[in-house]
This record gives sequence, C-alpha cells and structure tokens, in this order.
Amino acid sequence: MSSILLRNVVLNGSTVNVRIEENRFQSISQSVPAEPADETLDAHGQMAVLPAFYNAHTHAAMSLLRGYADDLDLFDWLSNHIWPVEARLTNEDVYAGTRLAILEMIKSGTVFFNDMYWRGRQAVRAAEEMGVRACIGILRQTMGNPAFLPMLDNDWLLENRDKLSPRIQISVAPHAIYTTTEEILRDVADTAKKHGLAIHTHLAETKKEFDDCMEQHGMSPAAYVDRCGILTDRTVLAHSVFLTDKDIELLAERRSVLVHMPVSNMKLVSGQFRYDSAALFSKCRWAIGTDGASSNNSLSMLGEMKTAALRGKDVTGDPKAMKAADVFRAATRSGAEAFGIDAGVIEEGRLADCILVDLNNHNLVPGFNLISDMVYAADSSCIDMVVCDGRILMRGGHVDGEEEIVAGAREAAKRLTAQKK
Amino acid sequence: MSSILLRNVVLNGSTVNVRIEENRFQSISQSVPAEPADETLDAHGQMAVLPAFYNAHTHAAMSLLRGYADDLDLFDWLSNHIWPVEARLTNEDVYAGTRLAILEMIKSGTVFFNDMYWRGRQAVRAAEEMGVRACIGILRQTMGNPAFLPMLDNDWLLENRDKLSPRIQISVAPHAIYTTTEEILRDVADTAKKHGLAIHTHLAETKKEFDDCMEQHGMSPAAYVDRCGILTDRTVLAHSVFLTDKDIELLAERRSVLVHMPVSNMKLVSGQFRYDSAALFSKCRWAIGTDGASSNNSLSMLGEMKTAALRGKDVTGDPKAMKAADVFRAATRSGAEAFGIDAGVIEEGRLADCILVDLNNHNLVPGFNLISDMVYAADSSCIDMVVCDGRILMRGGHVDGEEEIVAGAREAAKRLTAQKK
Repeated sequence: MSSILLRNVVLNGSTVNVRIEENRFQSISQSVPAEPADETLDAHGQMAVLPAFYNAHTHAAMSLLRGYADDLDLFDWLSNHIWPVEARLTNEDVYAGTRLAILEMIKSGTVFFNDMYWRGRQAVRAAEEMGVRACIGILRQTMGNPAFLPMLDNDWLLENRDKLSPRIQISVAPHAIYTTTEEILRDVADTAKKHGLAIHTHLAETKKEFDDCMEQHGMSPAAYVDRCGILTDRTVLAHSVFLTDKDIELLAERRSVLVHMPVSNMKLVSGQFRYDSAALFSKCRWAIGTDGASSNNSLSMLGEMKTAALRGKDVTGDPKAMKAADVFRAATRSGAEAFGIDAGVIEEGRLADCILVDLNNHNLVPGFNLISDMVYAADSSCIDMVVCDGRILMRGGHVDGEEEIVAGAREAAKRLTAQKK
Repeated sequence: MSSILLRNVVLNGSTVNVRIEENRFQSISQSVPAEPADETLDAHGQMAVLPAFYNAHTHAAMSLLRGYADDLDLFDWLSNHIWPVEARLTNEDVYAGTRLAILEMIKSGTVFFNDMYWRGRQAVRAAEEMGVRACIGILRQTMGNPAFLPMLDNDWLLENRDKLSPRIQISVAPHAIYTTTEEILRDVADTAKKHGLAIHTHLAETKKEFDDCMEQHGMSPAAYVDRCGILTDRTVLAHSVFLTDKDIELLAERRSVLVHMPVSNMKLVSGQFRYDSAALFSKCRWAIGTDGASSNNSLSMLGEMKTAALRGKDVTGDPKAMKAADVFRAATRSGAEAFGIDAGVIEEGRLADCILVDLNNHNLVPGFNLISDMVYAADSSCIDMVVCDGRILMRGGHVDGEEEIVAGAREAAKRLTAQKK
C-alpha cells in the first residue's frame, strides 16, 4: 500500500483534493496537500467521490447459476434445479463463481460482501486476491444431502481467521431456523461469543417459516432465535420480513442488523419488509443486500436501492417513504457499520473505501441531486473508479484480469451443468 | 443509407451473418453473403443480436428535470416543483432535454419513443437528427395555465406530418380525461380518423381518476373514452391501471394498446397493473414504457422490464407470473407492433432495428439464458451497438456527439431552474 492523491473531485457539491495514505483518508481539503503522493489522479471537477457500497447478504458463487432457472415456484426451483447442481460444486467452481460475483460487485461500486455459501475458503481466496472486503460464514445446518458435507471449510475458517487479510472477517452462519436445531443455534451463540465472531443467518423470510415456528416453538422466528442466544449487536439477519411489532422492539433492543433485499423478496414472492413500521426505521439497524445472483439476478446495489425506494412507496402508499437519501445511507454507511468497518462515509481518518462517478455520464445529467440520481437513475456505466482499503480496484471502468475471470466462470458453469445431462 | 454486414453474431444461440441493405434485414444466414457491404463488422461469436426496445410512453424532455424533485406527494411535486419550471420551457430547452433523453435511450438499447410533451416540433427535430424513431403527439388539453399555450406546435405537426422522416409518426394526444372535455375527446377521435393518426393518452392512472370519472360520467375511464370514440386499434393508453374486468374485455375488443409502466406507478404510488387478469394477458395488446425521467428517473427499458417481472410476481403471489420472455416481448416486438413498425424481431425483410450485446459482459455471464439475463441482470454496459432503420446509432458504447448533448442539457437545466430564484 501507498499514497494516492485524488485531485479536484466533487464531494457534497464542493471540489476538493483527497489524499489517501496507506488505507485511510489522510486529508480532504480545498487546497492541494504539500506532501507528494505515489499516484495522483486529477478529476478536473468532472467526477464526484462517494462512499462505496456494502452488500449485507450474498451467496456470491451462485453467480455461476445466473439465469440457470428463473420464473419457477420456490420448491421446484431449489429441488429440481439449484440443489442438484450445487451438490457437485468443486473448490474451483466456488472460486470461479465468487470471482465473477466480486467482478460484478466492483463494477457496480461495491467493496464488501457478507457471504454465506459452501466452500468458504474459496470465497476468502477470491476476496483476498481481488482486494475487496468480505465477511465469510462458517456454515451451520443439518445436512439434508450428505453430498454437501465435504463442502464445509468450517474448521479451516475458524483456525485461520487471524491469519487472513484484515479485510476479511469470519462469521458463524447458521443457515436458517428451519435447517438447524435449537442445539445448533445455541452452539452458534457459544462459538460466536467464545471467538468474538459475528453471526449471520436468514430470518423470517417467508410466511411458512413464521407459521411453522409459531407452531413448533409457540413464538415468532425472532423470539425463537433470541431464546437460542443468537441475537447480538453483531448479528446480521437476512430478509427479516415476517416480524411482529414486538419482534421489531426486540431487534432494536438487541441492536441486531436487519438486511433488506427487495428484489429477492419480489422475485421469490417472499413477502414485504415492514416498510409500515416507524419503529423499525427509527430504532433498528438495517442495511441492504442483493441475495445471490440466482434469486435477483444481479449483485448491483444500484438496482437494489431503486427497488427498495420504489417498493417502500408502493407498499405504504406514501411517495415520501423510503427516500433516496435514506436508502443510500443504508447501502453505504449502515452496511459498513453493521460489520464494524470504519468506513461508509468520506471523512479524514476513515478507511479509504470510495467510488468515483462520472458526472458527465448521461444518467447523472443534469445533476440536481447526486444521491437521487445514484438511487433512481444510475447504472454501472456511471462508475469510473473503485477504491477499497486505499487500493484502486477499478479505474476507467476496467478491473485487472476481468477477461480471465469471465472466461473462468463461463468454463466452470459449463462443466458444472454439462454433468447433469 | 447503405449496406452493413454483421459477421458472426449470435442469434437464438446460433452464429450467423446478418446483412442489412438500406433499412431492412436482407439476409440472415450461416454462410457469408457473396454480395459485398459498405461496412463489415465481425463479432467473432462474442456478441448476440437482439431486437431493440420500443418505449411506448415518454415525456422525453423531462430528462432536463431528472432529480429536480423526488420523494414528494404528487400534487406538491407537480404544483410546486414541475409545473412552475415547465411553464418557462423554451424551444431550445425542449430540444436539449429531448436530445439527452434520446442519448440515454440509445445507450440502453431503445430506438423508438412515444412522446407526449410541449413543443413537439423540437422532439421531432431531435429524433430526426439523432436517427431514432418516434411518435410525437399533437397535445390536446384544457389549459390551466395560459403560459403553456405558446408551447403547442400542433398546427405545425399536423401540417408537416407527411414531410417528416419516415421514422417519425404523429399522434393526436389528449393528455387525460381529467384535463380534457368530452368535446375535445370527440374532436380527437375525428382528427385521428380524418388524418389516419394514432391516438395517445393517459388512462386510468390513479384511483382518483377512476372514482371521479364514475361520479361525473357514471362509468369507468375506459368506458368513457370509448363513448367519446377514441378507442381504436391505433390508440395507446398510458398506465391503464384502474381497469375493471369489463374494461379489459372492451380494450381487447377495440384492440387498443395498454402501456405498462411499473416504475412510475410505484414511485408516484398510482396503483397496480392488472397482473391478476388472465384476460388482459391473453386478449389485450400491451407494451412497456418508462414514463418521463421525472417520475422514474431513468429511461432504460432494461430496468423497466425487471421491475415489471418482479412486481407482477409480487402482486400476484406467483413466482411464475410475468416471465422474462413475456416481458422482453412486450418491450420489443409488442412495442413495435403497437405503432405499426415492421420490426421488433430479427427476421429477413423486417426493418433493420437491433442491438448487439457483449456476451462477455460480466452481467451476461455465464449465459444460460440470454433473455433472462437481459431482463434480470443486464444494464446499459452490456450494449455495444445500436442499429435503427439500417443506421448504426451507437458503436462500442459510444454515440456521436454525446459530450455536446450532455453539455447542452446541463446548460439548459441550469438556465431553466436558475430563473426560479
């Protein structure tokens, strides 16, 4: 790592000079810093610097199955299409798929993903190599299919967690309440506490999960996982759709993070986030995620932000609901904070994660409100540069090695699905 | 115009050679045509040719107001933000705004827009110059604000309609039932009939419009406009949200075209398209539009298709609803057919409108299903080339003169909104 000087970039409407030293923003000022930098880039006031995105829930390697099966009933989709292929995933497949996912994320301005998938060691490998941040889960679930057993890298992840790049975190990741037992969940709580790890799980995604939990445990999914001890201020709850008002108070009190994923919820017909709950928005921590490419089928936080803003209005009947600025904050600062990453806002001393957007890109013109334009109008073509941890991961829209990543993913997907026939 | 040979492009999974002569697809074959072409491009099997998009409802010049006011109540938004600025629009503003809109449309693969706005002559000018197709409306409405009166180019449009480029159509465009009278609507019907023009109007966008119509006329908006004689097989009905089952049968019988615009409906909290109606989808003609940038705030049909597919599933509770292929067809072939354009499908003899997409773009990888990838995963970065009427409007993602178009729009928007203060 080294020093970078971003000259004449637009920050909150003013043109400034941003100096990055090692992996932090060292100075942000209208005057040019006297100290030289290893690399200087001049945006001539034509690019704005913004926080990068933090994707709070993914199954990254599923990018390998993008478009493989769509527009199907959930159970048909999983049982007859996704699971049979997933059972054959090799280390190299997961590596290739995760690299494709990271490429797509960098291209759309994302520098962090919170992943839950098989062969987590390969996700660590891909994220370390490509320079992004990630939280990789130690996957816990009862195995319906023994083929999946060799696909757990849990011991390796736990043992090596302190030897990894500082950009990589490890979580304990019970899949969901309906694929685990109370015993597993209590063990997750113990493991997380003992090793100081985050917890990452799916929670209250569908009505069926809620109803079954009420029947089996006499309480809601949120209350049930709380009884098992897994609601902490480092717990991240993917979906969090079927929540009672009491659940929302509980989650606020525990300071656990809800991850909103409107595209997946709509595509899989899961249900609606509690857009109607003033308590959720005033008291709870919440972030945004894309879910896996198989249920989206994009990993762009840009599209996810727009869908969140639109659906919040649609569901509440209030065009003032889910304002652009609130959605943008959830996708940036709140996502970083959820994982204890000292970033998500462009300030001196913070970790140097940011994107540069081209203010002359037609999607951002005429440019009355950059945040509104990013949420409602931008696509990946607006993003010129991506910086993570003080290192430039994309410049001029190009990521080093992208052609090889695409070729590798295409080959892995072909091999994987050819075996089926 | 001249001849173009697209060598080794992928069409429906096969690699073919496409020869365009003047403005039509002359031959599509696996063998290379013997006849030389003025221009030959070789895609080496790395690009697919697809139909371009036909945007069935726009207010193109409103791109000038993108991001100017968002997340507001409809009446506040219109009265306090949009209308005061619109009342000051000059010819050059509308020209600059429409050019920005056309640039954005070309970049996202759209070659046609059906426009309703002030100073239609400027929209004609922009569309003729930039090489796209358009249907421009002769705007009819009772004028709440006399400032808008000089902004009508209706006589010019009617008189010059036969002298324009064959790519340009003229429609008669009553704004809506609540901004016109029965007399105006009957006159629209007469004018359209007399001159053989299409009719373009907003219909049944909001609950209030429906309820008010029931109260004032004792019938639904669809029944009311039918009584006025404006439901023909060349009538295009923007929004078409509040329709009764009987209305759907009526619209099917009249062969009028419904324009679905899910993003605008969600952002402005208008209501839901009748995704639940099997009759609508089996009997009615329907296409897709983006509405103006002010209520979207994008003119990309890619985003619109995805939102349509997601919201159809969400509203019906059926993940098999609004399949990718159906949505893609509505955005391409059905849009072209709605305006009598002999295009929307890549076939010998058809008008040569198409896009080339980069199959190595990460969003389209691994590439199991190109149509699903276009609907759920693509953004404008996937589109390499756009051809309209046998002429290349974009190549390598670049449109001639785009820098100047962006600068002109930025300047117009600045001038327009500076006057307010």
